[in-house]
Amino acid sequence: MTWPITWDDVLAAGARLAPYLSPTPLRHYPALDAEVGHGIRVLVKHDNHLPTNAFKARNGLALITALPEEARRRGVVAATRGNHGAGLAWAGQLLGVPVTICVPLRNNREKNAAIRGFGAELIEAGNDYDSAVEVAKKLVEERGLTMAHSTNDPAVIAGAATITAEILDQVANDPALGGALDAMVVAVGGGSQAVGAMTATRALRPEVEVYGVQAADAAAIHDSWHAGTPLARDRAPTFADGLATRQTYELTFDALRAGLRDFVVATEAQLAAAVRMMIRTTHNLAEGAGAAGLAGLLELRERLAGKTVALILSGSNIDESTLRRVMTDTI
Amino acid sequence: MTWPITWDDVLAAGARLAPYLSPTPLRHYPALDAEVGHGIRVLVKHDNHLPTNAFKARNGLALITALPEEARRRGVVAATRGNHGAGLAWAGQLLGVPVTICVPLRNNREKNAAIRGFGAELIEAGNDYDSAVEVAKKLVEERGLTMAHSTNDPAVIAGAATITAEILDQVANDPALGGALDAMVVAVGGGSQAVGAMTATRALRPEVEVYGVQAADAAAIHDSWHAGTPLARDRAPTFADGLATRQTYELTFDALRAGLRDFVVATEAQLAAAVRMMIRTTHNLAEGAGAAGLAGLLELRERLAGKTVALILSGSNIDESTLRRVMTDTI
Repeated sequence: MTWPITWDDVLAAGARLAPYLSPTPLRHYPALDAEVGHGIRVLVKHDNHLPTNAFKARNGLALITALPEEARRRGVVAATRGNHGAGLAWAGQLLGVPVTICVPLRNNREKNAAIRGFGAELIEAGNDYDSAVEVAKKLVEERGLTMAHSTNDPAVIAGAATITAEILDQVANDPALGGALDAMVVAVGGGSQAVGAMTATRALRPEVEVYGVQAADAAAIHDSWHAGTPLARDRAPTFADGLATRQTYELTFDALRAGLRDFVVATEAQLAAAVRMMIRTTHNLAEGAGAAGLAGLLELRERLAGKTVALILSGSNIDESTLRRVMTDTI
Repeated sequence: MTWPITWDDVLAAGARLAPYLSPTPLRHYPALDAEVGHGIRVLVKHDNHLPTNAFKARNGLALITALPEEARRRGVVAATRGNHGAGLAWAGQLLGVPVTICVPLRNNREKNAAIRGFGAELIEAGNDYDSAVEVAKKLVEERGLTMAHSTNDPAVIAGAATITAEILDQVANDPALGGALDAMVVAVGGGSQAVGAMTATRALRPEVEVYGVQAADAAAIHDSWHAGTPLARDRAPTFADGLATRQTYELTFDALRAGLRDFVVATEAQLAAAVRMMIRTTHNLAEGAGAAGLAGLLELRERLAGKTVALILSGSNIDESTLRRVMTDTI
C-alpha cells in the first residue's frame, strides 16, 4: 500500500500551524497511573486546550492553509455534527475564509452555538448526517465552495499528525516526562488522529506501538479492520459523538490496517467510566471521544503492563445533559 | 495606605515565571455572552490550563523563586487544603526545592493525590485547617523550613498579578479580542488574585473597574469590606473550597478596601449554576472558585450592561462527588 501522507507533509502542516497554535501540554498524572495500575505510566496530551477544545482545530487550520488563495476567497463547506465544524469555523475566522457548516435538524445545540460563535454560517437542514452532506454538496455546486472532508484529505491527516509530532518532541526534550514512550492508544472516529500518529512514529520512533479504539456502538472501522474488508453500519448510537462514524474512509483504512498493532472497542459504560476517571485524576473535562483512548488503555492494560503510554485528550465538548448522565452513571 | 506590592514587583515576578509558564489563553465565547445577556462581552482567562489547573501555580512559583538559595535548600512548608499546596508542590518539584504540605485529616482525597503527585511530602494531621497550621509552624521550628503563606507574602501577590498583566497585554495586542476592557470580576479567597488584578490595572489601565466576589457561605472578607473593619467567621462551609476563608489577611485587606469598586456574594446555588454555565458555554471544567467570577458577574450584570468584562477561570479542581452534585443541582 501507499501511505496516505509523508513525514514532509507533517512538517509542512506543522509549519503552517505554528504561527497560530502553540504546542499543547503533555502531562503526567501519578493519580491517573495509580488508577490505571499494572505499572503503566500514562502521558496525557492536552488537545482539549486548543481554541475549539479539540484537535480538529489543527485539522481545520491545516486544511484551510493548504488551499490556494482563490479557493480561500470562495470559502469552504462541510457537513458535520460537531468538532470538525468548529475547527473549520475557528480556522476560517482566523484567516478570513468564509465557512459554511451544514448540520442536520435537532443537532446538539451547544455544538451549534460553538460553530456560530466562531462566525461560520450554520445551515440546519435534513434529518440526519447524510442529508447534511447532500446540502453541502449542493453548495459546492451552487457557490463554488470547497468541500472540507473531516478525514479524506491529506492536509487534514497531516494536521492531525502534528499532535504526535509534538508528543515525540516533548518526550525527547522534557526531562520531567521521563524520556520513554512505548505505545499510544488512539481514538478512531474517521482515523486522522491514528493515521497521523503512525505517520509520526514511523518517521521518528518506529518502535512505538499504536493501538486503536472505537465505541462498541460505532464499531464500523474496528469491525472492518478485523474482517480485513470495509463494512458499513446503519447506526452509530454512541454518546461519544466524535466517534459516531458508520463506515471506513478511503484515505485512512488501509493505513489503519497496515499500522495499528491492535484495535479494541469500549462500551458506552466503559467510555463513561473513562470520562469520570479523566475528570477525577486530571480535573480536565473530556467528551466521550476525548476519554476513549483511556477506555482503550484500560481494555489493553494487562498487555501494556509496565509501559509508558500516551493518550490524546481531545476533545472536551461534552454537552451538559450528557455530562450529567455520565456523572450519575446513567448513560 | 501603602499598596502591598509595586508594579516593578509584578514585572520581576513575570520575569521569574516566564521560563516555566507560557501565558494562558484569554478567550471570547459568544455562547457565554448570550447567556450572560445585557450586551456584556465576556473574556475568559484560562488559568485552568496551568500545570496544577489553578492560578496558584503562579503564586507558588513566584514565592519559591523569590527565596534565597539557602532557604530553597531547606525547603518550604504550608498549611492548605488544596490549590495552594499543589502550586507549591509543582513549583518545588520543578526547581528541586523540598515541599511539605500539611492538611487536616479527611482532607479531599483528589487534592491530596494531586499534591503527592507533584512529589511533595503530605502530612495529614489534626481535625481542621487551624491544626494543620500548628503542624506547619512546628516544622518551621524543627526543620528550619520557610512558611509559605497562601496570601500574606508580597511574592505571592506579585505572582497572582501576572494573570492580569497578561490579560491587559492580550487585550492590547490580540485584535480578535476586540481591544476593549471595562471591568473584571474576581473571586476572593485570600485576595491575591484581586489585589494582583488591581496592581496591574492601576499601573496600566486605571479606568478598568475591579469587582470582588465571595461565597455567601464564606463571606468574612466581603462582610469586613462592607463593615470597614476586619471581622472573622467561625465557619466557611462553601463547596467552593478555594474560597473557604474565615478572616481577612493583613497584606490584602486594605488594598481590597481601597481598590475594589464593589464586592458581592454568590450563594451556593448561584456558584453551582455558574459552574454549569461555564461548562455549557466554554466546555471547560471549573471548580466553585473557578466559576465564582462568573457568578459575581451574573449578580452585577445590570450594572455592567454593555461592558467588556474579564473573568479568571481558576481553577478546575472540582472533585467527582461535588461535580456530580453540581450537575444534578443538588448542592
